[in-house]
Amino acid sequence: MKPAPSHFDILYQIAASSDAEAREKAEKVSVEQSVEMPVNAVPNQAKTSLPEVTKVTELCEGLWESEVSFPASLIGNNDIVQFMNILYGNISLYGDIKVTDVSNHIFESLFEGPAHGIKGIRKMVGANNRPLSCTALKPIGLSPDNLASRAARFAVNGIDIIKDDHGLANQNSASFESRTKACTAAVQKAAEKTGKQTLYFPNITATHKVAAERAEMALEMGAHGVLICPQLTGLSLLSEIRKNFNCPIMAHPSFSGSFVSHKTSGISMSLYYGKIWRALGADAVIFPNPGGRFQFTREQCTDLHNTLTNTEFPFNASFPVPAGGIQLTSVQDFRDLYGDETIFLIGGSLYEHPDGIETATQLFQKALA
Amino acid sequence: MKPAPSHFDILYQIAASSDAEAREKAEKVSVEQSVEMPVNAVPNQAKTSLPEVTKVTELCEGLWESEVSFPASLIGNNDIVQFMNILYGNISLYGDIKVTDVSNHIFESLFEGPAHGIKGIRKMVGANNRPLSCTALKPIGLSPDNLASRAARFAVNGIDIIKDDHGLANQNSASFESRTKACTAAVQKAAEKTGKQTLYFPNITATHKVAAERAEMALEMGAHGVLICPQLTGLSLLSEIRKNFNCPIMAHPSFSGSFVSHKTSGISMSLYYGKIWRALGADAVIFPNPGGRFQFTREQCTDLHNTLTNTEFPFNASFPVPAGGIQLTSVQDFRDLYGDETIFLIGGSLYEHPDGIETATQLFQKALA
Repeated sequence: MKPAPSHFDILYQIAASSDAEAREKAEKVSVEQSVEMPVNAVPNQAKTSLPEVTKVTELCEGLWESEVSFPASLIGNNDIVQFMNILYGNISLYGDIKVTDVSNHIFESLFEGPAHGIKGIRKMVGANNRPLSCTALKPIGLSPDNLASRAARFAVNGIDIIKDDHGLANQNSASFESRTKACTAAVQKAAEKTGKQTLYFPNITATHKVAAERAEMALEMGAHGVLICPQLTGLSLLSEIRKNFNCPIMAHPSFSGSFVSHKTSGISMSLYYGKIWRALGADAVIFPNPGGRFQFTREQCTDLHNTLTNTEFPFNASFPVPAGGIQLTSVQDFRDLYGDETIFLIGGSLYEHPDGIETATQLFQKALA
Repeated sequence: MKPAPSHFDILYQIAASSDAEAREKAEKVSVEQSVEMPVNAVPNQAKTSLPEVTKVTELCEGLWESEVSFPASLIGNNDIVQFMNILYGNISLYGDIKVTDVSNHIFESLFEGPAHGIKGIRKMVGANNRPLSCTALKPIGLSPDNLASRAARFAVNGIDIIKDDHGLANQNSASFESRTKACTAAVQKAAEKTGKQTLYFPNITATHKVAAERAEMALEMGAHGVLICPQLTGLSLLSEIRKNFNCPIMAHPSFSGSFVSHKTSGISMSLYYGKIWRALGADAVIFPNPGGRFQFTREQCTDLHNTLTNTEFPFNASFPVPAGGIQLTSVQDFRDLYGDETIFLIGGSLYEHPDGIETATQLFQKALA
């Protein structure tokens, strides 16, 4: 990692009704996210902790953009948890401030980015140019053998990646250990039969200690990577697993919607999943696709896709994984939308296909050829 | 902990324009948060995973309340991370569903609640009936000696509890170790002088491994408890620290505002901080006070106060800690609002008091006598 710069910028969108109000709010944010006390009571020794509002511009009626320059000394010692605190700690309670961007250079001093990224995952799958296919193993309630039999049917018919449903944890119906053992074996057997290696990513989402134990167990059993819901575990688990296991990580957005679902508050989807989750080490990032059961727009989703794959950001690119409401009949539309640097995740419509999982998987693979 | 019940209920508020639409949304939520696939494609073996919508009632124009009964088998094996996933995982991405309550009995099978709670903290302070006083040690940028000198001035003048500002992490200006050492010594020295023990809670918010190391270090040095921002660390850190160190824990709402700031989505403040954070083991819960720089109403805040102290919830009561915008002149108003089972947290207005920290602290203490 590079040494910390002296300062870094955070960009906000601020709801206001005048330039003066927007400026006042920007000043308030800069104090809230640093010394958190009346500026006139800050002692001289701590005055270097004060950020500086460097820009306040009207974007459109009722909405301003503000840039604040923060001293990197507020973070200190590679502390990614404190970085998130500075980024959106107390102001998450305001309800009318949205964070939209952060200087690239601060990331280089705190994060390592994906260990494998798009290139690494492509190499493991053996597919250099086309989009990749992915499905979710489900539902909760099936036995390990039944889940493994489904994994086998997907794998034999050529799917690129199988990830656990993010709801598969360590239930009595299929413990993490028994499920991962059965599914890695099934996927391995399919590879021996077809000559093509399907990747399997079990869900290790749990407390940090247990998640690390599961990552170790899964990789020893032959899993090719892991699935994590970083908002459920706490974001730092992503970087810990990346650092300690160096395996491909797919990140799932469960529990994170409150940060990215609101127009005038939260963190922009592009910054949150596209820069922060990528910086934390997600090799692939699942996000809610437009037109499905979620409410994100095509523009938000293509912005995110562009950010995840942007080569100016100082880490390996993360594979964008749109999910939710993609049908076999609409894959081509979304391929046109996102381009080929994409993993398409289809769950439901493979399971309910009238001709069965096998045919559905073959059609899916054909659509991405 | 008690054995898991077979089912538990989750209560939602759903924005809709008709009874039929509300019912349809409730069904959609029940599927999203369990099998996450078309119901007609769920195999027989997994049908027991399906929740049941048990109530859909109109609350007021445009808003319905829905109750869904979930099989506890979806959680499995004391998994509090998976509990949060079932509670508000994917539906956090919907933007129009708010979770408002959960059956008390499921908490007993997953959580232990505060180790000390109101009674324990009162015993440590030696004050049985009156509200307690608390301040935040700040700002970032001061040296350990300067922070300790401030701690001493608060303690000598009788403050009950000093917590670190939640922005004090491990910056170069005051590392966690040097700050905690200096401040515990200062508070101890004050106690020897005055005969009254002020409690000191340093901020251990960090990755789980580092937070545990800091908790151990702090308690060895003589700190009386710790401060954690559970949303920054991942919620499970709260229960881990409670389990492994058994010390009083004060929880800070940094980064959690996106969950509780929206009328028609998120988790109600009362459920989130009042039941979930209490269940996770927070002995005291800081929350944004109405009328300050945050946007919560008196009703939301008193609801939360009532939930934190409710004796029907099966754990020790958590101390409510309203914070933000409380002045020495308004303490009495808020004492009337909340009653005496309250820790009042005042930061800024002690620091900027024209007669100095010492007088301000004495006045604060007097107001709570």
